[in-house]
Amino acid sequence: MSSDFGKNLKVSIFGQSHSEMIGALLDGLPSGYPIDPGELQAFMDRRRAKDGLSTARREADRVRIVSGLFEGKTCGAPLAALIENENVRSSDYDEIAFHPRPSHADYTSFVKYRFRDYRGGGHFSGRLTAAICAAGGVAKQILKTRGIFVGAHVLQIGKAKDTPFDPVRVKKEDFPVSDFPALSPSAAERMKAEILTAKSECDSVGGIVECAVLGVPAGVGEPMFGGVENALAANLFGIPAVKGVEFGSGFAGACLRGSENNDAFYAEDGKIFTKTNNAGGSNGGISNGMPVIFRVAIKPTASVFLPQETVDLKTGENYSLLIRGRHDPCIAVRAVPVAESVAALTVLDLLLGAEKDKWNLGE
Amino acid sequence: MSSDFGKNLKVSIFGQSHSEMIGALLDGLPSGYPIDPGELQAFMDRRRAKDGLSTARREADRVRIVSGLFEGKTCGAPLAALIENENVRSSDYDEIAFHPRPSHADYTSFVKYRFRDYRGGGHFSGRLTAAICAAGGVAKQILKTRGIFVGAHVLQIGKAKDTPFDPVRVKKEDFPVSDFPALSPSAAERMKAEILTAKSECDSVGGIVECAVLGVPAGVGEPMFGGVENALAANLFGIPAVKGVEFGSGFAGACLRGSENNDAFYAEDGKIFTKTNNAGGSNGGISNGMPVIFRVAIKPTASVFLPQETVDLKTGENYSLLIRGRHDPCIAVRAVPVAESVAALTVLDLLLGAEKDKWNLGE
Amino acid sequence: MSSDFGKNLKVSIFGQSHSEMIGALLDGLPSGYPIDPGELQAFMDRRRAKDGLSTARREADRVRIVSGLFEGKTCGAPLAALIENENVRSSDYDEIAFHPRPSHADYTSFVKYRFRDYRGGGHFSGRLTAAICAAGGVAKQILKTRGIFVGAHVLQIGKAKDTPFDPVRVKKEDFPVSDFPALSPSAAERMKAEILTAKSECDSVGGIVECAVLGVPAGVGEPMFGGVENALAANLFGIPAVKGVEFGSGFAGACLRGSENNDAFYAEDGKIFTKTNNAGGSNGGISNGMPVIFRVAIKPTASVFLPQETVDLKTGENYSLLIRGRHDPCIAVRAVPVAESVAALTVLDLLLGAEKDKWNLGE
Amino acid sequence: MSSDFGKNLKVSIFGQSHSEMIGALLDGLPSGYPIDPGELQAFMDRRRAKDGLSTARREADRVRIVSGLFEGKTCGAPLAALIENENVRSSDYDEIAFHPRPSHADYTSFVKYRFRDYRGGGHFSGRLTAAICAAGGVAKQILKTRGIFVGAHVLQIGKAKDTPFDPVRVKKEDFPVSDFPALSPSAAERMKAEILTAKSECDSVGGIVECAVLGVPAGVGEPMFGGVENALAANLFGIPAVKGVEFGSGFAGACLRGSENNDAFYAEDGKIFTKTNNAGGSNGGISNGMPVIFRVAIKPTASVFLPQETVDLKTGENYSLLIRGRHDPCIAVRAVPVAESVAALTVLDLLLGAEKDKWNLGE
Repeated sequence: MSSDFGKNLKVSIFGQSHSEMIGALLDGLPSGYPIDPGELQAFMDRRRAKDGLSTARREADRVRIVSGLFEGKTCGAPLAALIENENVRSSDYDEIAFHPRPSHADYTSFVKYRFRDYRGGGHFSGRLTAAICAAGGVAKQILKTRGIFVGAHVLQIGKAKDTPFDPVRVKKEDFPVSDFPALSPSAAERMKAEILTAKSECDSVGGIVECAVLGVPAGVGEPMFGGVENALAANLFGIPAVKGVEFGSGFAGACLRGSENNDAFYAEDGKIFTKTNNAGGSNGGISNGMPVIFRVAIKPTASVFLPQETVDLKTGENYSLLIRGRHDPCIAVRAVPVAESVAALTVLDLLLGAEKDKWNLGE
Repeated sequence: MSSDFGKNLKVSIFGQSHSEMIGALLDGLPSGYPIDPGELQAFMDRRRAKDGLSTARREADRVRIVSGLFEGKTCGAPLAALIENENVRSSDYDEIAFHPRPSHADYTSFVKYRFRDYRGGGHFSGRLTAAICAAGGVAKQILKTRGIFVGAHVLQIGKAKDTPFDPVRVKKEDFPVSDFPALSPSAAERMKAEILTAKSECDSVGGIVECAVLGVPAGVGEPMFGGVENALAANLFGIPAVKGVEFGSGFAGACLRGSENNDAFYAEDGKIFTKTNNAGGSNGGISNGMPVIFRVAIKPTASVFLPQETVDLKTGENYSLLIRGRHDPCIAVRAVPVAESVAALTVLDLLLGAEKDKWNLGE
Repeated sequence: MSSDFGKNLKVSIFGQSHSEMIGALLDGLPSGYPIDPGELQAFMDRRRAKDGLSTARREADRVRIVSGLFEGKTCGAPLAALIENENVRSSDYDEIAFHPRPSHADYTSFVKYRFRDYRGGGHFSGRLTAAICAAGGVAKQILKTRGIFVGAHVLQIGKAKDTPFDPVRVKKEDFPVSDFPALSPSAAERMKAEILTAKSECDSVGGIVECAVLGVPAGVGEPMFGGVENALAANLFGIPAVKGVEFGSGFAGACLRGSENNDAFYAEDGKIFTKTNNAGGSNGGISNGMPVIFRVAIKPTASVFLPQETVDLKTGENYSLLIRGRHDPCIAVRAVPVAESVAALTVLDLLLGAEKDKWNLGE
Repeated sequence: MSSDFGKNLKVSIFGQSHSEMIGALLDGLPSGYPIDPGELQAFMDRRRAKDGLSTARREADRVRIVSGLFEGKTCGAPLAALIENENVRSSDYDEIAFHPRPSHADYTSFVKYRFRDYRGGGHFSGRLTAAICAAGGVAKQILKTRGIFVGAHVLQIGKAKDTPFDPVRVKKEDFPVSDFPALSPSAAERMKAEILTAKSECDSVGGIVECAVLGVPAGVGEPMFGGVENALAANLFGIPAVKGVEFGSGFAGACLRGSENNDAFYAEDGKIFTKTNNAGGSNGGISNGMPVIFRVAIKPTASVFLPQETVDLKTGENYSLLIRGRHDPCIAVRAVPVAESVAALTVLDLLLGAEKDKWNLGE
């Protein structure tokens, strides 16, 4: 009742870092859409560990779709995607079974479940984001056929900042295609340097991911608690390490005047646009036809290789912990396709729900 | 399917700015809790318009509970709370029926519903937050009996900033009691000045509300998409004008190292605490026993009294709009009890859900 | 979290038998549909107590819609309908506060809530079906504009049976219009006799209600647990005293052969029909375009005026109970518009959900 | 959004008759419960095809749990159970792709999805009940540790009837253990004869399954639409071929008087019981501590080997169909463990939800 989301398209994620498999179940996909396995695998590869910048744990993350397709197309039945956990070294985690890593879920999962799979963080591991990407990759292929594109980039790593998307004119050609998902090459270099420095100091660093969804028609999302922002935020906080979500001008809007923050409407060729996009594409929770723009704050990886203070859950004594295992010095880079996945799945869910608006009568 | 939230405690909000009534329905309240009408009304008063700083629309916001109580106590049946709309001046809104205000839901609600109640923003009006407060005030009374306290303050208005809560040591005595919900009197003065200046210039200004929930035991919330952060964020974005939500160090965490951001555990008197609280009270979506701390970005009021560019929805022509009506120059101040309400309702919902963890076996 | 149902159209019911008000909240109604108050009130009247056959509690059941309409039409905002409880005689119920009536919810609600509103059965009272009818009456008006009609009749009272609907050819002109909702006048007389005899013996009697929904297009409902039958059954069991639900040939199908029970398809004028309708209008949970036909078993009213064995919840001793109060000798008659209401609301909910099937691609 | 059920324990079913795998996902299982694979497999075997009485399609139905366990015990993470589809003969189904079998979902799934997996009924196949049993077998093992037992038997096949459970005194030793799940050997023989006769005539026959859940404490289930009956009925209609559900005296109650149908309370050893159990274990949707008793009507298998009238979906012409493939002449026998599974999963879900009642205060 918690590792799933969605109303019309239900996404369920399962697996633990060291279980036999992880996977995703998609219930409610529309039928008749071809899913290209090569394109899906290429998307999965964007999340995989990068040389030097990521964990030493490397896996093929081969996605196997065992139901929900017929002759290569979605057939309306639930789609189950499986990924084997291959490169598992459980012995690394004996230390943390009862010595919870600071700012990780080791402690809270112990309090909640008492008996839980502590290996590699169990169900709380960043490893689960591979399953999110398997689901998201499917959603992206379906959205593309409707002219809807989802892209993201790393906006900030530590003190290194990239330029944001142009919130009004961003187009799919702007989405990063290089190995490191920054918009400008110079920002990419500075960001890599931040990561490598942190890594060399046995430390980690945080970042911000910015995402744009293009082509969402106006009128998607529901009032109050069922809006575009509510759904995206609820689901984005399901990505491990996310600690903040903002749309459009977001927190910076606190300093602004209404006259500065308001997005003027104008008509062109019978369509309505806004001149600016401080709203991030939605008013009152409902899309306005402009790009949906949001940013996600990713905390620095909790698993650092420096001595840390914790407690021994068996003895109740304070304890100095030096963890082992394989961890990314910065999660934000690999979080880019994960954020895209959550966005794609959420938007597809909202779009399916918006079809019922056809019952609304004009005047 | 959208003006409601909650799994174990279901909160539904209804009404339009100019409908006969607005109200809230609470399904799933535990039974046997006395609800003090005076205390509830006092809480409602915290949301009411403030002299000089707020809209000229003044209403008693008298809450009438017509079901769900028996002998003054909750009885397990759904609790319906009604508030009359008294001070209604619908003629003010003829202008905006087909001239959508920039950055308001006038346009998106038109696209979605075609036929909708445009008077005062209809169901999208900030007026609906009175119904949220009626519900939240009930939840706060129940939480209090369990030693759980929810408080918030204005952290920032325009460029005027207050000191944040101490995320580790914040206690209920720290919650603001004065008429203007800032922590320091000097910040209150600077904030009021920001508002009054904006108002005098026919403009509006944004702000940030910070909220703390004290006394939440460790172990509340579910993994991935059912966590404390997911639920709070989803519901907080239901407050009109919220454009960002962050927990603990939030977006600032992007600049931090793991060694700086991690919250060291320590044991004291058989209990476990963290030395810092950059996590904002939850790890992996599950509460860790520290205060739950979050901040909410509130955009400047969209309704400003300056000429604005918009379109005529009937003719499709561009149009210059000068709105009338009664609007707050800054919503953030009145959003304080609303944020508390959403937090209280969400936390109560999560707490009720966490009871099922009693089925989890120890080792 | 329990007095509500629906996914796209959310229906919430509130109130207690003796609370100030009861009511219904409808979230997700499509916009632009005129709601005729007179027609709604006439529908409410069908549920009202009938001379001689029903409880002596008489109420006007005037429905007051306080939100969700604008200029007499639905506007997309939640619709709140209120009904005052007028004719309340709470003192009648002191006896049953701790002497639970056999086969009533007095005992189970005590176990669950301890503190609960026991007056007149509280939230478990048949009185709440007035609120269901207020909601259902609105749904019926919307469905009618789409050519969908819902009707029901009493199929059986005690040993008196009426003829069932013709499951293939039933049309809206067949729906009963007389004061007593049986199809044949002779059945009506025999049924009334059953009720009056039971009443004269201080007893009560059960019955069966049969319902037909006409005009549901093929393709509505979802596989497995989201089908037409799942949704209808789940919601129909929310009507107090319902103990069974069957579709088409239902339980009688156990005696049949496949060759007898199967509904042969045939084509006529480019449309597809079935020659018989033992399926009751759905195959695999999805509507097939034939009338949706179901029957609901209504148990005899639990409140009979004969001495009954129960226990004293305070002392734990056995106790002989002779109840007072005002109770129907047969609920089935008044359950007819209630079953129609639940059917209308459920079908409208399913229809709204089926719109997303427009995303399904042909070949 | 439809092949799943449950609020606190979410059960999702996936797969098609001829997809690579079918399976079940269980999200919300309590942690620390050992799951015995041998016991699970033995339960699966109860659903498998029986010599002479069932389809010729035979599969090992080996359940592979790939996540959610740690050291053989549930660990709080979602449990994924996979079953390979081995014995697949898709060519049998070319005939039915566009010639829908009467009373099967072939037609409605075509209308809904246009493109769908028609092989063996796709997602609508009875094959999916193996996945339900995999989930149900896990739930049964957990319930057993709490003293809750679920058992069912075939009450009727065609005209052959068994004696029902004693609704008051039924105990787990009464649950059938022989290969054919009837209570009396003589009924078993008569039932087998009904099946074999139907089979020999290329026909099929319907039946009724009766189920009892023992050990459910009083107070489980929610008012109105969240009751024991609502949840069980909603989920039971997810079993293919179910066309009716009744509790306790069910439809027979229509003939009864209140004085006959009411279940007198009595106290014994400080506990409260009812003398009869016409309510089937729940009053007002909430369990009363007596056995939960329900019956499920199973229609005769739609796939019979006699010529049937249907239409050609491509030409729109009438068509005479003689199906091939492998089909059970009576589904009711194999539905017994499926009904138990749905009951076990539903009751476990309700029990987890009932824990929140600990917040209810006494007086």
